[in-house]
Amino acid sequence: MSELKNDLFLRACKKQPVERTPIWIMRQAGRYLPEYRAVREKADFLTMCKTPELSAEVTIQPVDLIGVDAAILFSDILVIPEAMGMQLEMHEGKGPVFPSPIRDEKSADELLDIDPFMHLSYVLDAVAETKRELNGRVPLIGFSGSPWTLLTYMVEGRGSKNFAKVKSLIYNNPKLAHKILDKLSNAVAGYLTAKIEVGVDAVQIFDTWGGILAPDDFKEFSLQYVEKIISNIFRNDEPVIYFPKGVHHSLIEISNCGANVIGLDWTMDIGDVRKVIGDKVALQGNMDPTILYSPEEKIKKEALKILESFGDGSGHVFNLGHGILPDVEPQKAKHLVDVIKTESIKFHK
Amino acid sequence: MSELKNDLFLRACKKQPVERTPIWIMRQAGRYLPEYRAVREKADFLTMCKTPELSAEVTIQPVDLIGVDAAILFSDILVIPEAMGMQLEMHEGKGPVFPSPIRDEKSADELLDIDPFMHLSYVLDAVAETKRELNGRVPLIGFSGSPWTLLTYMVEGRGSKNFAKVKSLIYNNPKLAHKILDKLSNAVAGYLTAKIEVGVDAVQIFDTWGGILAPDDFKEFSLQYVEKIISNIFRNDEPVIYFPKGVHHSLIEISNCGANVIGLDWTMDIGDVRKVIGDKVALQGNMDPTILYSPEEKIKKEALKILESFGDGSGHVFNLGHGILPDVEPQKAKHLVDVIKTESIKFHK
Repeated sequence: MSELKNDLFLRACKKQPVERTPIWIMRQAGRYLPEYRAVREKADFLTMCKTPELSAEVTIQPVDLIGVDAAILFSDILVIPEAMGMQLEMHEGKGPVFPSPIRDEKSADELLDIDPFMHLSYVLDAVAETKRELNGRVPLIGFSGSPWTLLTYMVEGRGSKNFAKVKSLIYNNPKLAHKILDKLSNAVAGYLTAKIEVGVDAVQIFDTWGGILAPDDFKEFSLQYVEKIISNIFRNDEPVIYFPKGVHHSLIEISNCGANVIGLDWTMDIGDVRKVIGDKVALQGNMDPTILYSPEEKIKKEALKILESFGDGSGHVFNLGHGILPDVEPQKAKHLVDVIKTESIKFHK
Repeated sequence: MSELKNDLFLRACKKQPVERTPIWIMRQAGRYLPEYRAVREKADFLTMCKTPELSAEVTIQPVDLIGVDAAILFSDILVIPEAMGMQLEMHEGKGPVFPSPIRDEKSADELLDIDPFMHLSYVLDAVAETKRELNGRVPLIGFSGSPWTLLTYMVEGRGSKNFAKVKSLIYNNPKLAHKILDKLSNAVAGYLTAKIEVGVDAVQIFDTWGGILAPDDFKEFSLQYVEKIISNIFRNDEPVIYFPKGVHHSLIEISNCGANVIGLDWTMDIGDVRKVIGDKVALQGNMDPTILYSPEEKIKKEALKILESFGDGSGHVFNLGHGILPDVEPQKAKHLVDVIKTESIKFHK
């Protein structure tokens, strides 16, 4: 494996000095890129995830086309429940569906304990292939869903507005919920450890649905399992990013979860958060993804606002506050990357 | 008009002493009640809104059946854009649709300036009918959407995940957005004034989509118009409740908007919010609506947690943090009301 030619992202995650703020974009390997859509035309979503060459190809596209400072492996958080034995279907435009969601002890007991090298070897092959093709240009990020976010999908079975089923589970049978969350924590820790073993340089835990829980429930059903995972991952100094989308409370507890970096959505002021939690972790984020619908001057103005709000010094990884939207023009994403590359220098004198 | 027999809700809104904490429930006149569904079988949703006898009937049902301390007029926030000339369709299970959403100057210019006594007289008739039938048992609340929340529906045209259209509008043509928001503010202020004139005892402004905006955008495109409305409503001492769902930032600014009461969703700790903004406004909320799927002991435990978090003294109107869900058992809602009626006494010694 070659040495990294651009390690700005890793240094910022570790709060080491950098010459400028690094940037990557959630869902940067995605439908807004015509080059991605060309690959997607040849294979469905899950086939792309399961074919290391295709996964590597789309993973690297935004490095070439947009100029981001890190690649994130093209995959999906739901490959874990699928590996545990749940049938997974991807419906174009409607999102993922589990036709047989988990609703009782019996279906929960049937979930397999997984060995990533056996049950998710295609992901690890994709990591190896991507690392080879990246050839040290930028670091590669691996990711997983948080146990709570995975549980939400596994119990609801499909997109939900009120999350009635998973909330009913935690309020009526918390013991069963904890049992599944515990099993998921073991699976996620093993999965992220395996990814690190085969070459990813950092990992991110997506807690997309952490924000639907009241503060006490968030700590009980989500955060404690994230802490457990982070302390159970075997790693050298690969950073861990935790992104609890929509969670605006419990900031101190979140900053103590063991992650090197906390991801923020766009409803927080990044400078205010830095003031509240101090400098013990780096922060990632947090521009509203819809700003990329704006004219270029407006994108620049908003990007600058975030750089200024974070302020001087290392510990900031620029990103959107959620995934890039499929109808954004690629040129707008490239413009954002260029703005960060030039305008952030003055915050690192 | 008879004197109110139970004015606990109004006194709590004004932070006057009460013997116990009052409670009402957002969407309390709704599908979870078999008695509501029986009326709904005879008429579609908009017909119910537009027929004063039906509107009054379902408005009063939860007073009789659940025992709440206030009634809220059965209606919909989208009657205002409809009165301004937009065609409105209600699709069962899919929510409201505007087949011709506002996307340009021309369609914005065609929006009518409305006179509520002319264009929305059916709502005012429903208020009068409901007041008559309530006969002073509990206060009657009238409501409106905030200009921002109305704009969101008017521009998106239907349910949205990313709010791409309305965000594009505010970023690419903020001038047009402000022009429509200004027109909506005048309409809402006139509408709420008219409702007060014909008899409602309080009004609530729902800002359901305030939380999708970054903090600066929220202040520019939502909060300033709410302030304008509140200062333009003609009223005696009828309280105004502002419910900015999902807005966890800008709490000080929100508490200074002129409303007597701020509504909170369930992701906030009500005691923490009280500490931050002090005692200048009353607070309403804020139990997670899905808690009503729980066993009765759990509902009691969670209700007590909120009462204790708010603490002693007046200025708390108990409510859920969002509307009651259609598949909740009515007995669970009644249990919550009973718990609040008995358990809250000790916080008002």
